Amino acid sequence: MPVMPATIPETHPRRESLLVRERLARGFGEGLVAAEGLMAHGRGEAFDYIIGERTRGFARAAIRAAAATLLLAERPAISVNGNVAALCPGEAAGLARATGAVVEVNMFYADAGDPAGGTWARRRRAAAALARAGAREVLGASPENAGRLPGTDSERGTADVRGALAADVVLVALEDGDRAAALAAAGKTVIAIDLNPLSRTAAAAHVTIVDNVVRCMGELAAECGRLSGNGREELEGARDSFDNAANLASAVRAMAAGLEARAAGAGTA
Amino acid sequence: MPVMPATIPETHPRRESLLVRERLARGFGEGLVAAEGLMAHGRGEAFDYIIGERTRGFARAAIRAAAATLLLAERPAISVNGNVAALCPGEAAGLARATGAVVEVNMFYADAGDPAGGTWARRRRAAAALARAGAREVLGASPENAGRLPGTDSERGTADVRGALAADVVLVALEDGDRAAALAAAGKTVIAIDLNPLSRTAAAAHVTIVDNVVRCMGELAAECGRLSGNGREELEGARDSFDNAANLASAVRAMAAGLEARAAGAGTA
Repeated sequence: MPVMPATIPETHPRRESLLVRERLARGFGEGLVAAEGLMAHGRGEAFDYIIGERTRGFARAAIRAAAATLLLAERPAISVNGNVAALCPGEAAGLARATGAVVEVNMFYADAGDPAGGTWARRRRAAAALARAGAREVLGASPENAGRLPGTDSERGTADVRGALAADVVLVALEDGDRAAALAAAGKTVIAIDLNPLSRTAAAAHVTIVDNVVRCMGELAAECGRLSGNGREELEGARDSFDNAANLASAVRAMAAGLEARAAGAGTA
Repeated sequence: MPVMPATIPETHPRRESLLVRERLARGFGEGLVAAEGLMAHGRGEAFDYIIGERTRGFARAAIRAAAATLLLAERPAISVNGNVAALCPGEAAGLARATGAVVEVNMFYADAGDPAGGTWARRRRAAAALARAGAREVLGASPENAGRLPGTDSERGTADVRGALAADVVLVALEDGDRAAALAAAGKTVIAIDLNPLSRTAAAAHVTIVDNVVRCMGELAAECGRLSGNGREELEGARDSFDNAANLASAVRAMAAGLEARAAGAGTA
């Protein structure tokens, strides 16, 4: 279903956000993004608007802890969905290269028009987009090697036995809350990218990066490059000194402070 | 493009919000809702989540001022888009009956698959949905009587000469910011329903109801019924004593306070 975005004036104050929206709409038109993925993106846009559409200090702290955690992992996996494959496949592929992680596509919502409610067609499209963007190998694109994550029902439970199911550290970008909790319950260290610091995914993860995935995925790869020279002890220090609950609380406080500041402006407008 | 929502457990904490999401997804499948409408709904969901998914005091104050403004209008018009036609057509029709307003459909985003980028097919579907829900007559569904709102480009400028263009008071539900500003610039009193108190629509309107349209549309019709017995002077008092900028500021402050309270909880989690 093609989508025709309105043309965006060069001068539009939120042009960047609208260009990302267009990219997602194209991904939707190409059958890469689910209709529910469009709604989820809108929710993220609202939270991003509230944090000021920039990578904040709390996100930088989480990026550093996430980079150390990925570098210390024995079998890291990067789990991406259709939105990530449409918005920043190159950054996801770059992060995999920087960390030696496998890339796995995971879909929750059934492919439109698939009477069986399957997700394989969209998984294949996402894998192809990631491969075009430089990912060496992409797991999760075919039923072979598909296992089940304990404690989940439906498509959320499908995962690759060579990917998330075998991994000790899993980075989940824009993840479903039940699945993030199930990964943690399965004993995996979970790194989440989620613009909603109050989400179940944010709470279930060990490290939650509260930032726009389009901004922070490349930042995370760069941080892995910067930290890669460090010794194990330094990396363990960067990983173990991070308090996710406290970092999430400061993200929520920063949002509240930003709204307070705008309220003052709005009140005098 | 059919959408298959996941089944929602009876026990899910945010079941109501998810059921509304399913209704919108169905409207999308029926070609009533635009892909961009799904993203816009997601943005609204995030703001609704922050205000606590209930009609707050600042919204009730705006609903009272909006009801008085509609009852005092000589030619009120209710402008709805595809999302409203999909989510609460009966409430929109009921508000029109309670106020003697005309109902007009307005679409900004081109119909998917229309090479000319037109919106008429979706306008007709929205008008049909509103008629099925009890709207006596629905304007804006065909090119005849289509005029142009001064100071707008593109589809945003299309409006019915018997509807918004002839109206002295226009209620816009989930409106585009440029169009809301153009309606105000054209000398119309604008009532907006918008969950983002910081949006250009919220700022451009004379009365902004910061609430979920699914909750407040029926509330507004009920308030019109309650106030209809009042004399002109009482109604003018209710209308003219309302300060939109101050009400918007209190909505933003309430959001900030809600986040602060949750941050305290998250910090101790």
